[in-house]
Amino acid sequence: METMVSSAMKEVIIGHDRPTVLIGERINPTGKKKLAEALKAGNLEIICEEALAQAQAGADIIDVNVSTFGVDEVTMLPRVVQTVLGTVDIPLCLDSANPEALAAALKVYKGKPLINSVTGEERSLSAILPLVKEYGAAVIGLVQDDDGIPNDAERRVAVARKIVKRAEATGIPRQDIIIDPLALTIGADTKSGLVTIETVRRVKAELGVNIVLAVSNVSHGMPDRDLLNNAFVAMAIAAGVTCLVVDVAKVRSIVLAADLLLGKDEYARRYIKTYRQRGQQTPGG
Amino acid sequence: METMVSSAMKEVIIGHDRPTVLIGERINPTGKKKLAEALKAGNLEIICEEALAQAQAGADIIDVNVSTFGVDEVTMLPRVVQTVLGTVDIPLCLDSANPEALAAALKVYKGKPLINSVTGEERSLSAILPLVKEYGAAVIGLVQDDDGIPNDAERRVAVARKIVKRAEATGIPRQDIIIDPLALTIGADTKSGLVTIETVRRVKAELGVNIVLAVSNVSHGMPDRDLLNNAFVAMAIAAGVTCLVVDVAKVRSIVLAADLLLGKDEYARRYIKTYRQRGQQTPGG
Repeated sequence: METMVSSAMKEVIIGHDRPTVLIGERINPTGKKKLAEALKAGNLEIICEEALAQAQAGADIIDVNVSTFGVDEVTMLPRVVQTVLGTVDIPLCLDSANPEALAAALKVYKGKPLINSVTGEERSLSAILPLVKEYGAAVIGLVQDDDGIPNDAERRVAVARKIVKRAEATGIPRQDIIIDPLALTIGADTKSGLVTIETVRRVKAELGVNIVLAVSNVSHGMPDRDLLNNAFVAMAIAAGVTCLVVDVAKVRSIVLAADLLLGKDEYARRYIKTYRQRGQQTPGG
Repeated sequence: METMVSSAMKEVIIGHDRPTVLIGERINPTGKKKLAEALKAGNLEIICEEALAQAQAGADIIDVNVSTFGVDEVTMLPRVVQTVLGTVDIPLCLDSANPEALAAALKVYKGKPLINSVTGEERSLSAILPLVKEYGAAVIGLVQDDDGIPNDAERRVAVARKIVKRAEATGIPRQDIIIDPLALTIGADTKSGLVTIETVRRVKAELGVNIVLAVSNVSHGMPDRDLLNNAFVAMAIAAGVTCLVVDVAKVRSIVLAADLLLGKDEYARRYIKTYRQRGQQTPGG
């Protein structure tokens, strides 16, 4: 099953037999004071810089999140979307829990964006899915419902199933739903990585949809976070994850290695090309 | 299912719910001119150094291979085994295709070694399995038979099944068989990594035995081999590999990360302890 998203001129296709798609996570004010201040002041220069840097690092899609105290998302999300699309021609992931902000951003978006996200909660399903349908977008479905995030794979798959059913009943084709099986902090529960990987395998086997993961939570509070994130990325791709919400510059190398090892990089072309580019950027490195 | 191997004083247990066991690969003259020359001259100092270095790097088991042109394995394998056991108290993996050399090494070995290896070839099964039985050893079974190495998972699993059956018929308990699903060079065939990972999953599901992998072949001829080896190690452990034949110093960090993420490191004790030791060895690193 393949999911297509696009900007005005560029299409990105996500699929189980294709190279892993990278969604740049850095336009998000959570924990970034400088970015939060710039958004409050309406100064979008730093956002253009981040968009360019992520495109250069190999992002296929850029996530845009402007949710922070003191910023009106309904005004700011469409403004930032237009600014980013004017800077880089890359499909965007509109990241908000606010249906009005999403509607405002969808109105100005040229192409087919990814919406991040709907959950299995009734309030979310009834507010977000009609928007996805109306604008012909694709959507990320998080496996949490009115009871919270299940701590076993079985119930996470059940939430995924519910989201897919409701989306299809709303008239959204299954290939436009991407399930996020949720990666929690390993430091809080050392079994949580296993639950995520098991959910990935079962969602792939049962529903066949694309699967996205935001990996950086997994290593929160641990030393050598990049090492843990890299190991998790490799396992997640092997289990069936087809796109990642990540700091692209930090994980691209391990993703290229994993894609090559899993038969998603014929003749090792992407792996070798990127290795050569790395060599040029950092001589001797 | 758990496999126990031992030296005179030390037991190592390999199992699906335990931390991944690391078998140090460096006492092997293949491609190592200095080591080959030392073996020919009967000079075992370099071997003691390698054994100590690997133990220090965190090897749980040490592989001993003396097979090179100009060395009589039947004399040299037992001599090297005694030398290594006199240097480090760590269980050994006796690595030879020569049944006489294995018999000579088994005679002098104190404890329960791992034999590397038997294949599905008739000649190998009938020569190696009786030795494994006689000395109460554990054995690695390579998934190749008289027709060579199958290039699909189905037939590799069939060879694994055949080895397990024949071993059991010889009186060797199933927990003393460790299957090696074979990692081939990704540069020669970009689908080969997938076949290995699929074989790991199916051998685990069907036979339940422990699974070993020698990973370094996978990256042969490719740039940035450590990156590929690390990615492959993480995926292999997630798929069901329980021990690895590796250059321990190079892969230990990613193995600890993978074990933590897969619930094999309660309270992250091993991960954090090793991180602290690394910090002390390389200040500021």
